[in-house]
Amino acid sequence: MGKFTIIGERIHCISPVIRAAMEAMDPAPILKRAKEQLDAGAVYLDVNIGPAEKNGSELMKWAVKLLQDNCDNVPLCLDTSNKKAIEAGISVYNNAKGKPIINSADAGDRLSNIDLAAANGAICIALCAKQGVPSDNDERMAYCQEMLEHGMELGMEAEDLWFDPLFLVIKGMQDKQAQVLDFIRQLRDMGFNSTGGLSNVSNMMPKLIRPIMDSTMVAMAINNGLTSAIVNPCDRRLMETIKSADIIMNNSLYADSYLEI
Amino acid sequence: MGKFTIIGERIHCISPVIRAAMEAMDPAPILKRAKEQLDAGAVYLDVNIGPAEKNGSELMKWAVKLLQDNCDNVPLCLDTSNKKAIEAGISVYNNAKGKPIINSADAGDRLSNIDLAAANGAICIALCAKQGVPSDNDERMAYCQEMLEHGMELGMEAEDLWFDPLFLVIKGMQDKQAQVLDFIRQLRDMGFNSTGGLSNVSNMMPKLIRPIMDSTMVAMAINNGLTSAIVNPCDRRLMETIKSADIIMNNSLYADSYLEI
Repeated sequence: MGKFTIIGERIHCISPVIRAAMEAMDPAPILKRAKEQLDAGAVYLDVNIGPAEKNGSELMKWAVKLLQDNCDNVPLCLDTSNKKAIEAGISVYNNAKGKPIINSADAGDRLSNIDLAAANGAICIALCAKQGVPSDNDERMAYCQEMLEHGMELGMEAEDLWFDPLFLVIKGMQDKQAQVLDFIRQLRDMGFNSTGGLSNVSNMMPKLIRPIMDSTMVAMAINNGLTSAIVNPCDRRLMETIKSADIIMNNSLYADSYLEI
Repeated sequence: MGKFTIIGERIHCISPVIRAAMEAMDPAPILKRAKEQLDAGAVYLDVNIGPAEKNGSELMKWAVKLLQDNCDNVPLCLDTSNKKAIEAGISVYNNAKGKPIINSADAGDRLSNIDLAAANGAICIALCAKQGVPSDNDERMAYCQEMLEHGMELGMEAEDLWFDPLFLVIKGMQDKQAQVLDFIRQLRDMGFNSTGGLSNVSNMMPKLIRPIMDSTMVAMAINNGLTSAIVNPCDRRLMETIKSADIIMNNSLYADSYLEI
């Protein structure tokens, strides 16, 4: 397995600073967050512009060019329910450092994001869910297969579907966590790439606990074969754990300096 | 699976303070370490007196009585190559809070420690090794089976053999770590208890790195079904991770205060 791929989640319109910057098309706050995340070890940057129904295409184009022009063609994860905005973003996207990722399809209403990925040579995050939380791993696997077949009929490579097991919040679904981890192992055993919004597990927990819980979960997930996650790379404990997990899984070679690399 | 069982490793004659206290039969330093470890969440305390060829029986008796009399019959893990010392310790041991653990047998020269456990109603740590490091998990499993059969012929319950997969040092055996984790999963799938000296993985690493690496490993190991480990419970990051892993595995119920419990 290769090194774990970190997708930085912090360029997100839910953040007031980023929302204001997106509204004003003000580069500085966005580039600052980009640099912080890349310095901390992010490989991909997620760009979440929300539904952006008015000016989504213009905004996504602007953001893609801004980030790639200023950050050495950083590969991006285009995150919006606005399909035209995704197409517009891809139309100006430079593949030099990696294909764009579309975030995200599922086996329900958002299945057609796989068509969008296939038509544009993109990677697609494929959430193993249709409506709400799958009841068990058989259901997750059924959705995974539906999306896989759909993508392959459209000529995609299986490796360009990054399956998302759907991380669940512990406060409310504590007894389902081991199941999610087992599903990640199933994906690994089938040779698939995987990703997901890992910090959902600690949602609603006290702030001090979240890095501890997320770190514990990411270690388990990487051991089960998770190949990527959408996380906050500025969470130091999480990043230390990811780097250590890569060492234990022999994905990167140990050196006493490995935490600084 | 029940809550992960922490065996505190810090009453060990390799520590100059403890060695001096054992030589002088001075209670204070030993009770201080006992209290620190129990306060931090240890369930069992390991008592390592070394080979103690001269006065092992007397010393182990003294230590067992000292610790149990002063720490509410804390259950103990008797750790010495001196069999007479183990027997002497068990002769004064109070089972009220848990059987004594003999640390440890293997499938080679130390097989007879299983006999000792069987004859004394003790638990026995059973290292899945014979001479040196097993070459693969088939070899580990062969030793596991040998020790299991031996114990059962002597009337032991399988649950009283706590199989030790033999944690390996990453600096030197990085590529074997995933194998050890897979073996823990095999033990889990067979319903066995397991334990081991987990911090061996970070042996020879810089001091600041060890808690990070050990925590990452323990999260993975608990997800694979490790039921216990011999660790330093005063390592805060490690303990936070163990408690979080118990939450994720649904071994203990989440509350916002779970780290303080």
